[in-house]
Amino acid sequence: MSANSFGQNFKIHSFGESHGPALGVVIDGCPAGVPVNLEFLNLQLQRRRPGTWDTRQVVSPRQEADVPEILSGVYERKTLGTPIAVLVRNQDARSQDYLGENVIQRKGHADQAWLDKFGHVDPRGGGRSSGRETLARVIGGAFASLFLKTLPVEPQIRACAIQIGEEKLTDQEKIEFFEKALMPEKTEMARNNQSGAISNFVDSYSARFPSLRHQEVRELLQAAQAKGESFGGRVELRVRGLRPGLGQPVFHKLKSDLAMAMLSVGATSSFELGESATELSGTEFHAGGNRTQYGGILGGISTGEDLIFRVGFKPTSSILDVAKKGRHDPCIVPRAIPVLEAMTALVLADHELWSRRDRIPHQST
Amino acid sequence: MSANSFGQNFKIHSFGESHGPALGVVIDGCPAGVPVNLEFLNLQLQRRRPGTWDTRQVVSPRQEADVPEILSGVYERKTLGTPIAVLVRNQDARSQDYLGENVIQRKGHADQAWLDKFGHVDPRGGGRSSGRETLARVIGGAFASLFLKTLPVEPQIRACAIQIGEEKLTDQEKIEFFEKALMPEKTEMARNNQSGAISNFVDSYSARFPSLRHQEVRELLQAAQAKGESFGGRVELRVRGLRPGLGQPVFHKLKSDLAMAMLSVGATSSFELGESATELSGTEFHAGGNRTQYGGILGGISTGEDLIFRVGFKPTSSILDVAKKGRHDPCIVPRAIPVLEAMTALVLADHELWSRRDRIPHQST
Amino acid sequence: MSANSFGQNFKIHSFGESHGPALGVVIDGCPAGVPVNLEFLNLQLQRRRPGTWDTRQVVSPRQEADVPEILSGVYERKTLGTPIAVLVRNQDARSQDYLGENVIQRKGHADQAWLDKFGHVDPRGGGRSSGRETLARVIGGAFASLFLKTLPVEPQIRACAIQIGEEKLTDQEKIEFFEKALMPEKTEMARNNQSGAISNFVDSYSARFPSLRHQEVRELLQAAQAKGESFGGRVELRVRGLRPGLGQPVFHKLKSDLAMAMLSVGATSSFELGESATELSGTEFHAGGNRTQYGGILGGISTGEDLIFRVGFKPTSSILDVAKKGRHDPCIVPRAIPVLEAMTALVLADHELWSRRDRIPHQST
Amino acid sequence: MSANSFGQNFKIHSFGESHGPALGVVIDGCPAGVPVNLEFLNLQLQRRRPGTWDTRQVVSPRQEADVPEILSGVYERKTLGTPIAVLVRNQDARSQDYLGENVIQRKGHADQAWLDKFGHVDPRGGGRSSGRETLARVIGGAFASLFLKTLPVEPQIRACAIQIGEEKLTDQEKIEFFEKALMPEKTEMARNNQSGAISNFVDSYSARFPSLRHQEVRELLQAAQAKGESFGGRVELRVRGLRPGLGQPVFHKLKSDLAMAMLSVGATSSFELGESATELSGTEFHAGGNRTQYGGILGGISTGEDLIFRVGFKPTSSILDVAKKGRHDPCIVPRAIPVLEAMTALVLADHELWSRRDRIPHQST
Repeated sequence: MSANSFGQNFKIHSFGESHGPALGVVIDGCPAGVPVNLEFLNLQLQRRRPGTWDTRQVVSPRQEADVPEILSGVYERKTLGTPIAVLVRNQDARSQDYLGENVIQRKGHADQAWLDKFGHVDPRGGGRSSGRETLARVIGGAFASLFLKTLPVEPQIRACAIQIGEEKLTDQEKIEFFEKALMPEKTEMARNNQSGAISNFVDSYSARFPSLRHQEVRELLQAAQAKGESFGGRVELRVRGLRPGLGQPVFHKLKSDLAMAMLSVGATSSFELGESATELSGTEFHAGGNRTQYGGILGGISTGEDLIFRVGFKPTSSILDVAKKGRHDPCIVPRAIPVLEAMTALVLADHELWSRRDRIPHQST
Repeated sequence: MSANSFGQNFKIHSFGESHGPALGVVIDGCPAGVPVNLEFLNLQLQRRRPGTWDTRQVVSPRQEADVPEILSGVYERKTLGTPIAVLVRNQDARSQDYLGENVIQRKGHADQAWLDKFGHVDPRGGGRSSGRETLARVIGGAFASLFLKTLPVEPQIRACAIQIGEEKLTDQEKIEFFEKALMPEKTEMARNNQSGAISNFVDSYSARFPSLRHQEVRELLQAAQAKGESFGGRVELRVRGLRPGLGQPVFHKLKSDLAMAMLSVGATSSFELGESATELSGTEFHAGGNRTQYGGILGGISTGEDLIFRVGFKPTSSILDVAKKGRHDPCIVPRAIPVLEAMTALVLADHELWSRRDRIPHQST
Repeated sequence: MSANSFGQNFKIHSFGESHGPALGVVIDGCPAGVPVNLEFLNLQLQRRRPGTWDTRQVVSPRQEADVPEILSGVYERKTLGTPIAVLVRNQDARSQDYLGENVIQRKGHADQAWLDKFGHVDPRGGGRSSGRETLARVIGGAFASLFLKTLPVEPQIRACAIQIGEEKLTDQEKIEFFEKALMPEKTEMARNNQSGAISNFVDSYSARFPSLRHQEVRELLQAAQAKGESFGGRVELRVRGLRPGLGQPVFHKLKSDLAMAMLSVGATSSFELGESATELSGTEFHAGGNRTQYGGILGGISTGEDLIFRVGFKPTSSILDVAKKGRHDPCIVPRAIPVLEAMTALVLADHELWSRRDRIPHQST
Repeated sequence: MSANSFGQNFKIHSFGESHGPALGVVIDGCPAGVPVNLEFLNLQLQRRRPGTWDTRQVVSPRQEADVPEILSGVYERKTLGTPIAVLVRNQDARSQDYLGENVIQRKGHADQAWLDKFGHVDPRGGGRSSGRETLARVIGGAFASLFLKTLPVEPQIRACAIQIGEEKLTDQEKIEFFEKALMPEKTEMARNNQSGAISNFVDSYSARFPSLRHQEVRELLQAAQAKGESFGGRVELRVRGLRPGLGQPVFHKLKSDLAMAMLSVGATSSFELGESATELSGTEFHAGGNRTQYGGILGGISTGEDLIFRVGFKPTSSILDVAKKGRHDPCIVPRAIPVLEAMTALVLADHELWSRRDRIPHQST
């Protein structure tokens, strides 16, 4: 019922306009006792920021401080079981960039729909429909991840760009990337890295496109930004270490909640579960050995195998005429990756808590 | 929080195992005063049944009576504003067909996941994860449609198969189909048809595949069933006449709720909004004139233009060894169409009610 | 959001008009594996019926069969973890008794409010606002109780009338009653009783008023019915064996959810927690030794001590002129007791499941 | 599902520990276009603070600045339809006052229950169970009131202490108070008052006890504080101008939601609807002319008559030994009044929005 809430058990309430005083999130339903690693939280916010993955030229030059302030719910670096409120001030809120006639000319932007709905348009850069709202998701997702770390086996959530414009990762590149990214050493290396330049294996590639061609993609994006062009693309996500039994059989299938979570991110246009499925015959699809076509979910419930899903994005809406002022990205995909990872963590934390009520814990013998 | 509930305002609660005594649905949140057209309800249930679209050979021979009994919430053919409970008895519940060793051999079936989750497997045909649960959705969707008919402009929801196995509708076939299907005369013709043979324009095509090749597709499916093969496929849905302003800007975007609704249907594997978007450049994508690439949604909110989205299905899970006994479809796509239409109607009714609270109705002058 | 749903985790969805074809309930959120004792369920429905507590003359002569049919969610006498739908047919639905001019003359009845709200009045005996809707609560509460029986310690829920009209139980009588009622032997005796005449210790008293004067109260009620008079009254409930830690600190305090549950029952007018508190000074109130003034809840959270609360009822609304036809009770209190017990069980089951998410279960050392 | 959320349509999410950095609230579901009167908001926060009703000596000397900062959802003094986040910093957070051995000696305090639940005790003054959490309610209630002001008729919410310790208002005093308090002139006078000393008619009485004896009550409380004594009491609330038809017939009756709202406030022990009802016979109760016994609600739905209900409070828990350090009130009743008014406004705003979906708005002729 809450338009700005996500989750049924591990729940977040998002608030804030992109050019108002602040954005933030209230996390309700995180169990007490979860160790709060502030470095991890800051790292995720860093990863969402432009520039931190070595391609500062191709993303928005808007430099946001994005310092999170934890207002409640954490005491002596542990969660209290009470709502966790986290605030991020808007410090570089140049709403005047967005004022004037250009506003209604933004192609494909939501302003007219917003006007139809609420009877007004927030002239200050898109308000709630701005990408800046994703701060709330990344913070919420970081706490969801901190909770997931307390499980006997921590689910490993990994993602990369598999397509940017017309450039696509080869199957071989993709497989190699996930093989490496899901190795525990890679993760630890990334976490222990003190320089801050690399926070995650995927972040070592320009545009988070793990290919030898990643520098070419970077140049493509730079050129696109220079001439006001933009691109869509696709992200693939994989999760290893998820226990079987997550998801509810009918309306809250794990796949339906993941689809909702992914499509709630701005500029997304598609969700796809498992290896491409529609063109295979049943015999091919269900052939033994390779089970990646299921995407780790059967009957809506996790099987314990790797979750595999892809998210498509349409080209960024604000192109040249406005981009000069609005400072938008030529392709949203690289920056969206930490957001999609965060939404995935939120769905998994939500279903982990949900599944604690699936059966009676005190079974008679 | 309810695993078996869908919707925030116009809400349905689904219940029933496929081989238990009955299935049904409780609809809560349907406003009082909606005229209840029982013929319309029965028509939708008919459309979900095998055989009614002239391809009885290619779908499950399980002959279900599927007579809905309205237990509450309707009086003198109008809704009361109270919960509408509708029951369908299982009359042909041969659960013994599913018993024995074959059960755990069903490839790609959810039995193992179910066992992990609940500590038991319902041996009677999949229980809640069976396609028979969709009865609840079709009934709920029929009431949602009846509510939508009371709006000043009734949104027209149309769908067809655009791919079955490797057979795909051409762009031209697709465009022609939706042109015709969305003509008011077509709709009325279908509704007034007393023979029951055709209930909807799409139903006049075998496999709901609106092509001159539809008989070939039928034969393809017949052959597949004979040898225990199965196929995936894709459905495209379009909605005309939807008012602008539906959808909530952040987590309950119209696209995220549609994605969740579609992916909650069994055997679905993908959701895609608008014309294919990921490979176009921004200049091409946002070029004037053709706006079908947006799919009728911007910023998560309906624009008033046609909604356009596609849903992918994986091949049916139960193939030959089990199909002999379980009597499943070689391709779920044709039969899924009324279910997807129903889920769409539920999402639209839900957001229509939700949007009544968007702004104050008594604006000062 | 659902007007006809109760609970956040252990949830029930109620449906059905008192004079329509059927009433029922869908229970969603009951864990899998709970043993389903049908005798227990029938006993609770019996206890709600008129006549079963040896005072058939003072209650409504409407003889309802009230045979519950379990449609889903139970297999081989265990819950499946899927929605449990239970149906009760209305067999003695003489709606004509309520038709005609008398309807709008029913003093204190909700018909006008209903008309204002929904634009219609259900002429068939009050529709959803009838006491017959409580069948759904008693069934839901029986399943909640069955779940509570699987806990290491089963909370014992007991209730009795402490006031009927001007007749009040003395403190001594009340204390003696609860001492006995909360003895495990009493409970077992009642459960093993095969005659059906006594199902629960409190049921051995006329009007469930556990006093030596219970026959006088019975005669008082008989006289009241004869002359079309009616009475209010009060019920006290106590729960022993509840674990500490149930309830959520702010809006879902255990006391707020209990208050809501109790006041959701028709004809209720008050809720009071603990021994009378408002007139004591703090020194008296917080004096050691006797802690019954807290009612077993501090800061909204159960302490592990006995829960104690009282519910007040106003006099039955339908008196003589209408009662001749509508066949209502002269005092709703005796019959309401199983309903209040059921609502209490629902609140406790809901919070028991909720509290499983309070803290992380896998604490690091 | 959210332990810290209230409401189904007009929803608030509360956060913040009493001695952490800040408390606050996110309001979700307030329609767009509501004029935001900041003076009104500040007035309500003032009224919640100690001292503003001329009895500074009898309440906690803790002087809180309580300056609300609106972080989102409001632009140019109108609501945007987006979440309204409001923050209040804790400036006088002397948590050390609460540290040490005294903590676990606080009689009747929730610390032990909290420990059982979350596995820790927040040593800083009660954390979420502190009265300071009510700031979130008062802010949320102020926005609910601002929304209610946009209705064709604004419901007038009035409250006063009717009992403090053993001192009770006479029936005559109570009637006279509400007669005056509900006169529109009184309200306007209070609102236009620029001095800030009086914000509401009831605030002109010490302890918000509208009797000629109000100074005696003040002295009683002063004496109680001096010797570390405390008192319970009762508040009566009345609402005039509420339209008929609010409330949902079964579980979300207006009375059940009000009961839940009231009992969610700390130190409350009872809720009572209408004039005392349990001892009257039906003939007396339903006698014409005086309908105050119904409390303005029938069948759970508002009738359009005055809402009347009472809330009881137990004596404050922290008495002398701790009070010296914890600086608590000798009686919570006077300060609770703005909180109860706020919770009432929240319930009414919630049901006002809810009722917009009761029936179809576009009825055919």
